[in-house]
Amino acid sequence: MTSIPSSRDKLLFTPGPLTTSLSVKQAMLHDAGSWDVEFNSTVANVRQKLLELGGVSRESGFEVILMQGSGTFGVESVISSVLPPNGKLLVLANGAYGERIAQMAMQLRIKHLVLRSAEDQTADLAELNRTLENDFEITNVAVVHCETTTGILNPIERIGPIIKAAGRVLIVDAMSSFGSVAIDMDAIGIDYLISSANKCVEGVPGFSFIFARRSLLLATEGFARTLSLDLLGQWKAFEKTAQFRYTPPTHAVLAFVQALKELDAEGGIAARGARYKRNHQVLIEGMERIGFKRFLPDAIQSCIITCFHFPKDPKFNFAEFYRLLSAKGMIIYPGKLTQVPTFRIGNIGRLFENDIRQLLSAIELSISEMNVTLAD
Amino acid sequence: MTSIPSSRDKLLFTPGPLTTSLSVKQAMLHDAGSWDVEFNSTVANVRQKLLELGGVSRESGFEVILMQGSGTFGVESVISSVLPPNGKLLVLANGAYGERIAQMAMQLRIKHLVLRSAEDQTADLAELNRTLENDFEITNVAVVHCETTTGILNPIERIGPIIKAAGRVLIVDAMSSFGSVAIDMDAIGIDYLISSANKCVEGVPGFSFIFARRSLLLATEGFARTLSLDLLGQWKAFEKTAQFRYTPPTHAVLAFVQALKELDAEGGIAARGARYKRNHQVLIEGMERIGFKRFLPDAIQSCIITCFHFPKDPKFNFAEFYRLLSAKGMIIYPGKLTQVPTFRIGNIGRLFENDIRQLLSAIELSISEMNVTLAD
Repeated sequence: MTSIPSSRDKLLFTPGPLTTSLSVKQAMLHDAGSWDVEFNSTVANVRQKLLELGGVSRESGFEVILMQGSGTFGVESVISSVLPPNGKLLVLANGAYGERIAQMAMQLRIKHLVLRSAEDQTADLAELNRTLENDFEITNVAVVHCETTTGILNPIERIGPIIKAAGRVLIVDAMSSFGSVAIDMDAIGIDYLISSANKCVEGVPGFSFIFARRSLLLATEGFARTLSLDLLGQWKAFEKTAQFRYTPPTHAVLAFVQALKELDAEGGIAARGARYKRNHQVLIEGMERIGFKRFLPDAIQSCIITCFHFPKDPKFNFAEFYRLLSAKGMIIYPGKLTQVPTFRIGNIGRLFENDIRQLLSAIELSISEMNVTLAD
Repeated sequence: MTSIPSSRDKLLFTPGPLTTSLSVKQAMLHDAGSWDVEFNSTVANVRQKLLELGGVSRESGFEVILMQGSGTFGVESVISSVLPPNGKLLVLANGAYGERIAQMAMQLRIKHLVLRSAEDQTADLAELNRTLENDFEITNVAVVHCETTTGILNPIERIGPIIKAAGRVLIVDAMSSFGSVAIDMDAIGIDYLISSANKCVEGVPGFSFIFARRSLLLATEGFARTLSLDLLGQWKAFEKTAQFRYTPPTHAVLAFVQALKELDAEGGIAARGARYKRNHQVLIEGMERIGFKRFLPDAIQSCIITCFHFPKDPKFNFAEFYRLLSAKGMIIYPGKLTQVPTFRIGNIGRLFENDIRQLLSAIELSISEMNVTLAD
């Protein structure tokens, strides 16, 4: 293992913030005036480009709203702004991000119900159907597309039609899937979809973006429970002034413009998804060869992030493993499961097969440095 | 007037986002892992450094909490998290930012009362006293230090003792003053103070920071009305994990570290304030010479931003004036007053006397290009 050049940042095998291209970061070497016409047109272009990426349009009834803060702020802007005053939210949860939505509802004093499935299982659709049939109070349903707790990909294309048939509003947290997985919002029946600048579009953190079905959004007047996260208010400002309502993260927006160009140059969502799939394939083959066991079965495993069991050997110590990899210039991610000890490796961001191979070498070396045996 | 080199950004004479140094922007050319120990220690250092800048310490009972989003998100994180369930907020308002706090209280369904003064006047302290004596429901009082609507500097050193004598909690929005004006939080009796990364510290937008009196903060358990903006929750995460609760704007934090170093190198708050004062002095002398009239009297005018009346000549058109200045590489700011037509010029950010002189030349030229006469 050669030492990393001091000028190179550690590679981030995480769910984000991610390793981004130098050109994306260089786009931040400018100060834009947030009230200036040039920046206004930049913002308008970003919103238009996102509609195209999402395969929707204003004509097909969709809007895009940018929201300052992390992805969680974007999700809460939807939950806090679109649930009617007496609405009830059904949350499908099989990991920490589903639970986080339930926690939002709790703190926002919004009636809610959580339909939980095990962390390695997707929602029971028959139970979902029954719940919607029996509980007429439920107005909105929220589901996480790729639950990065495990890397599980929830089947929104099967969940969506059930929600639609039951006449409820569907909110999809597509934080870590949008930009690398094709999502047919109209066919699935998605009403609100949230993702973030620093995920598969490979921008830097600072804001999230929300797709909203206009007819529904317009019917949420007076629902918002906060000022900053008021989704309709934010949309109105974009429409009226072409500006963010409050100070935008101008540099993160400039980086995002460059990131969108680079996504196009790579060949769009399909090509980016294919790169992540190759990264994932190289990773799981390599980890299997070394002797690591995956937490999820193949059928529900996304190519975004992969969750691995701790080796059984008691000499394995995650903090030490993390430190050894970090010293080799590789940052992995701790587990987030409630029961089973695991760690996670992300494939998204400006990472290529060769980076994954470097990571695998570093993992093999670190395991040997810890004297950990991986044989069954 | 020579044309600006294409490599140079337009200078931002605004209340923010501001013109920042190249070195501050270059600090963003790195991707930091938000869970990584190195970034954790960066965040801890930023919080410690802010306490020092604020002239307070953990020992003196203060804490600093960073909050994702714009300054408004920071203010709302305080309003939404520290008002007791049956609390009532008194807002002192003499401009758009005071009104914005009242709007927050409204959207958060928090009882509130607004004590308004004219946009060119500070609060009537006798009336403030009477209000606090007569309305026992009032638990918290919020005031904007430098109201950038006009550039007025509200006398928090006289307001604070009144609030304290009345036993109420004092919240100060010091968004655009902190870092250039000395604020003795303990002497004034400030319990919560909010400012933002992209103001006088001269970082880039992406997060705000909140000073909180620990004993009061700890007594707000269960008060937070949202998850993302939960101030106590955010503080607990910093204490427990040394991390932001949710994805931090890593690049904006790295820029802020550099901005703090540059503030130190300049000589701290006093030296920075002195530079802004010189900028302001050069500006008002030059504008007076050209024939512009200021909105505020000297006694209450800050050196942060200055508000000028439109010339009386009907040939003056602000949009055209703005465009002419923008073409010369200078961005000024529109007015925000409810009654009187004005525009604003900011002195903060990486701007020096020479930049102000360039702006003055550009203004003089633009006025002559518009054939506007400024004689009385």
